[in-house]
Amino acid sequence: MKELEFVKYLTRKFRAKRPVVKGIGDDCAVLDYTRDKYMLLTSDMIAEGTHFTKGALPFDIGWKAMAVNISDIASMGGVPKYALVSLGVSPGRGIAFLKGITKGIRSICSRFDIEVIGGDTNRAGKTVLSIALLGEVEKPCLVKRDGAKPGDFLFVTGVIGEGKKKHMKFMPRLLEARELAKNFRINSMIDLSDGLGLDLQRLTGASSVGARIYKELIPLSKGAGRVKDAIYRGEDFELLFSASPKESKKIVRRRGKRHGLSLTLIGEIVKNRGVWLIGKEGKGTRLEPGGYEHFK
Amino acid sequence: MKELEFVKYLTRKFRAKRPVVKGIGDDCAVLDYTRDKYMLLTSDMIAEGTHFTKGALPFDIGWKAMAVNISDIASMGGVPKYALVSLGVSPGRGIAFLKGITKGIRSICSRFDIEVIGGDTNRAGKTVLSIALLGEVEKPCLVKRDGAKPGDFLFVTGVIGEGKKKHMKFMPRLLEARELAKNFRINSMIDLSDGLGLDLQRLTGASSVGARIYKELIPLSKGAGRVKDAIYRGEDFELLFSASPKESKKIVRRRGKRHGLSLTLIGEIVKNRGVWLIGKEGKGTRLEPGGYEHFK
Repeated sequence: MKELEFVKYLTRKFRAKRPVVKGIGDDCAVLDYTRDKYMLLTSDMIAEGTHFTKGALPFDIGWKAMAVNISDIASMGGVPKYALVSLGVSPGRGIAFLKGITKGIRSICSRFDIEVIGGDTNRAGKTVLSIALLGEVEKPCLVKRDGAKPGDFLFVTGVIGEGKKKHMKFMPRLLEARELAKNFRINSMIDLSDGLGLDLQRLTGASSVGARIYKELIPLSKGAGRVKDAIYRGEDFELLFSASPKESKKIVRRRGKRHGLSLTLIGEIVKNRGVWLIGKEGKGTRLEPGGYEHFK
Repeated sequence: MKELEFVKYLTRKFRAKRPVVKGIGDDCAVLDYTRDKYMLLTSDMIAEGTHFTKGALPFDIGWKAMAVNISDIASMGGVPKYALVSLGVSPGRGIAFLKGITKGIRSICSRFDIEVIGGDTNRAGKTVLSIALLGEVEKPCLVKRDGAKPGDFLFVTGVIGEGKKKHMKFMPRLLEARELAKNFRINSMIDLSDGLGLDLQRLTGASSVGARIYKELIPLSKGAGRVKDAIYRGEDFELLFSASPKESKKIVRRRGKRHGLSLTLIGEIVKNRGVWLIGKEGKGTRLEPGGYEHFK
């Protein structure tokens, strides 16, 4: 069972009731919080051997564990607020290791004004760090992954395919996401944690639409190699979003002028299901669900 | 560095601002939520080899991971509402294992009316399950661990020292805790996750008081062995709480009549720091901080 299927299984088993606006199946869960705001809740675990190597710097482990969660809050248009940190470390790790992780967490939390309000520490076979992050979003700013509409233009922030090089110390696109959510009508958004290939499948799947992306338009990082490899490389942590053509025009006109957003138009949402990668001569290849799968 | 010291280090590093009513250092973090209620947030991780064996039933793993979190919400007087589940499993585990964990989680969630609203699944070296649980409590019902006052009587629910036998399938004392928090003025409460010995140190330490508990009064489970061993055995998950003598009288008078609470008076809170175990002849032994330490 692949991860996508297991998530479907969980979605079926844990069907949300009110006041849960959105349960399993988006980057965050959404709760009806106050009159003006939704609460956002997300949790992500990073584990030695899967998300970082045994020799990874503890500072970087702490940073990354928080950054992936911030990225989830960002992709819903929200602001992170409070974190719970659960840490498992093997008995062989010393106190310097624990302090290093703490420093990494503190550093990114102070940058994004997040408070760590709880958590626990445990012995575990290998290092594992699980963070639950609570955030909020003004109701009109909430962006889900299931709102893409045929005709929407598709954008990504930054460059694609860099994942493995920068992935420990990446900067979550929180400011960019807030800029977008507050100033424009964004129909759908997701963060690229498992590669453009897989995350675009998620976005279109949730929205019951398809997409066409254009090989020539995809902004590749230096050394990313072939497009087809780059889009199946996880951990870019860029934003992928869609907006109507009219709204897209506004976004493109204003971007860079005041806010220095690095955005690239890479394709469009279409009515028929399926994701297509269109080459130079207009020849399309249908992309199968792929990307970085946790349960191969 | 022992766990208590590391928690102190974290408490210092992550000092809470408003609207955080209580940050690190209690069973849950407390946020000012609505006019009438506080929000409670807690997260606990359970790991293979530490909290359960490799051969543990997946159902029991799921049950236990949720139960330890429910116990934390209970000890603050609150009601659990929403959960985020982060799961790490080794590549060797099959889908039946994942489904078993899911069933255990569903079973206890349906019993306590909790909704799983998100989470993630990962590859990890050994199985590790981290759950963040969000709950709420009516403001007058909030019970913290730092409110014990000299003169208070100390009570525990159930029996002590059973830990290792029942610990996978234990029933968190949620109904009992709510009964207490709603009907009586409970000055302080904590759940016994690491043994009466250590958790009483935590409660008295947080409250800047001491305590005397009486050997003869401690309700031991069958086969618990000597009192001194039993109180350093973790995972009882009973409640330890204190109330004024006047309130204690009310609790004792009413208990059992309508609600069938199993409560035992085991001692009292005193002004001078230090926890004393008093024997038959009135001879006291000072208990050093101990219990189940995660970082020995």
